[in-house]
Amino acid sequence: MTFSIADAMRRVRASRPLVHHITNYVTVNDCANATICAGGSPVMTDAAEDVVDMAGIASSIVLNIGTLNERTVASMIAAGKRANERGIPVILDPVGVGATGYRTEVAGRILREVRVSIVKGNTGEIGILAGTGGEVKGVDSAGGSGDPAEAVRTLARRLGCVVAMTGETDYASDGDRTFSVRNGDVLMEAVSGTGCMTASVVGCYAAVCDDLLTGTVAAMAVLSVAGEIAAAGAKGPGSFRVGLLDALHGLDPQVAENAANVSVL
Amino acid sequence: MTFSIADAMRRVRASRPLVHHITNYVTVNDCANATICAGGSPVMTDAAEDVVDMAGIASSIVLNIGTLNERTVASMIAAGKRANERGIPVILDPVGVGATGYRTEVAGRILREVRVSIVKGNTGEIGILAGTGGEVKGVDSAGGSGDPAEAVRTLARRLGCVVAMTGETDYASDGDRTFSVRNGDVLMEAVSGTGCMTASVVGCYAAVCDDLLTGTVAAMAVLSVAGEIAAAGAKGPGSFRVGLLDALHGLDPQVAENAANVSVL
Amino acid sequence: MTFSIADAMRRVRASRPLVHHITNYVTVNDCANATICAGGSPVMTDAAEDVVDMAGIASSIVLNIGTLNERTVASMIAAGKRANERGIPVILDPVGVGATGYRTEVAGRILREVRVSIVKGNTGEIGILAGTGGEVKGVDSAGGSGDPAEAVRTLARRLGCVVAMTGETDYASDGDRTFSVRNGDVLMEAVSGTGCMTASVVGCYAAVCDDLLTGTVAAMAVLSVAGEIAAAGAKGPGSFRVGLLDALHGLDPQVAENAANVSVL
Repeated sequence: MTFSIADAMRRVRASRPLVHHITNYVTVNDCANATICAGGSPVMTDAAEDVVDMAGIASSIVLNIGTLNERTVASMIAAGKRANERGIPVILDPVGVGATGYRTEVAGRILREVRVSIVKGNTGEIGILAGTGGEVKGVDSAGGSGDPAEAVRTLARRLGCVVAMTGETDYASDGDRTFSVRNGDVLMEAVSGTGCMTASVVGCYAAVCDDLLTGTVAAMAVLSVAGEIAAAGAKGPGSFRVGLLDALHGLDPQVAENAANVSVL
Repeated sequence: MTFSIADAMRRVRASRPLVHHITNYVTVNDCANATICAGGSPVMTDAAEDVVDMAGIASSIVLNIGTLNERTVASMIAAGKRANERGIPVILDPVGVGATGYRTEVAGRILREVRVSIVKGNTGEIGILAGTGGEVKGVDSAGGSGDPAEAVRTLARRLGCVVAMTGETDYASDGDRTFSVRNGDVLMEAVSGTGCMTASVVGCYAAVCDDLLTGTVAAMAVLSVAGEIAAAGAKGPGSFRVGLLDALHGLDPQVAENAANVSVL
Repeated sequence: MTFSIADAMRRVRASRPLVHHITNYVTVNDCANATICAGGSPVMTDAAEDVVDMAGIASSIVLNIGTLNERTVASMIAAGKRANERGIPVILDPVGVGATGYRTEVAGRILREVRVSIVKGNTGEIGILAGTGGEVKGVDSAGGSGDPAEAVRTLARRLGCVVAMTGETDYASDGDRTFSVRNGDVLMEAVSGTGCMTASVVGCYAAVCDDLLTGTVAAMAVLSVAGEIAAAGAKGPGSFRVGLLDALHGLDPQVAENAANVSVL
């Protein structure tokens, strides 16, 4: 690897970036706690009167359309524009894109009106956005994206941003360089919100890493390594989720670096 | 018993039904995770622009008025009508009915405008709807429903649907047949949202069981047996909730069948 | 001490006060479970059509501006006025005041239009409201309040209510008497929502204690002692949160009384 996961971890923990989320009400608490355990400071606010000011002091923003509505979509766009003015990273999690027309329309609207830095989705979502395959059932991936490296590379080129795809193996590309991360555990699929938590951790790392692609890869590796540690002590999805926060919080940077199974494709 | 809980469990896990919730923001995460651990795929969305499409691909829908407002109540009715067109089950959880005039009015409005398949409430809520007694304090049951079997039977006959009532003993009736389920643990009362989780699990089972009454009974038995297992390893409500998800996810169908204490009344 | 924490605990558990919350969607589930584990009965509702009736049967109300918007702020004021008519305690948690203009404006609006009984904030928030110092980063305290006893005393005198400030040491004052509570654990800062949970527990105690100041001190001591017990068995923030609910629920009144490190300043 040409970058250090341990260094990125230390940078996040040292600077404690403020990550402003406009996100769904299902997994929002997990996003807040994942942000804290990764080393950041989370804030969630979605009122038109509040989001521009909050994006004005944040270090990055995360837009997640899991439980979208017209009021919060307008706030996402307003916050995104403010983030663009300031040059801070904007992470988009296009939850359930392709499952309904409204989700597809909103994801497209955000991508047109806001300069998104990183799109993070599951296999089905990225496959649909890339046009390489993919199926979404509600908000779960229900089908492959075709060749996964091709999916992230194609979409990254088209959008001109970093694209990250979570799954049994994670992938990320900026259209030029493409990485895979082979860490994690099958229990991550049995907890609602591990995908959303990934976007939160990416938000922490994007805030402090000049290279957004390797920052994204580091974030995915860190959460997945924490997932492996948590899985070893878990009796099921409930205790896995508890252990995931414990492991993320306590993770030693060098241990993460050594355990990360990252490849350049 | 004239039906197999183990078979119902296996059917849910094999078909992974998409359960669309329009629900409260207090316990929504527990509902999502309970749905996953029961074997379903949860999706939560409440925007007018989204709910009809989502109800159009769901296998069942759960309407929960815990934190109702005019926007989401309109979405509940729109989603319910779409579910009725498609013939998929609609589960109503009339949280806090009787505690305020608005809750009572909204529960009545949904029951008039949507053909509800299953009403699931606590003792106070069902007693109030049945007119057999019952008191509700906020969203908690604060008083009996009179004779419980009579309460569910009466309400089921009046509404022409299945009625399920949770409590120390659970009851369910379609107006003709009536069952009791004597499982569970007192710790279920010490966690916010076990009632909401029951509706989610009922949503999974209703999606795959032709007989909605025995599907409902199976769902209540499965969650209550998981509750017994979780209680055995819990130090209090916090660890009980964690263990409940673990136990629900790992529950062996034959163990559930053997442990279920279901009676025909 | 001139009051008994053990007696206050027993009173809460015996009367099971209904605590109506209008609060944020990030930590609302923790607030509900903390209320139950402290001995109260939580209800969360924010619709204009519902809040006045609910405040009409509640024993106290908690207003938390963590994820405020115009609709819910209007409901907070309507519920607050109803609570004032009935003479039940109103607890305000001015989350993130000072971080954005909107939060500062809304906190001021609530304090003008509602007779607030207890303001509970973190060090930064209380320092800002008191004008003695303080900095807020998103919703986290990012800087001291100057002399903490002076901050709570000053603000309590100006507002004519009880003011509570959480931090490594907690402080509370009614402008005349001032207390400190030296309990808790550093892990409380690593979980989103422990401040919100404090407001919920204060809501339980305020509902049953004639002296709101010592009721507030008792509530802060009880949660912090539970935090010490939880920390002893925790591996990180995830298991700490689980253990906090277990410990709060199982806490023996005499143990709490003995462990509480409360001083009159």
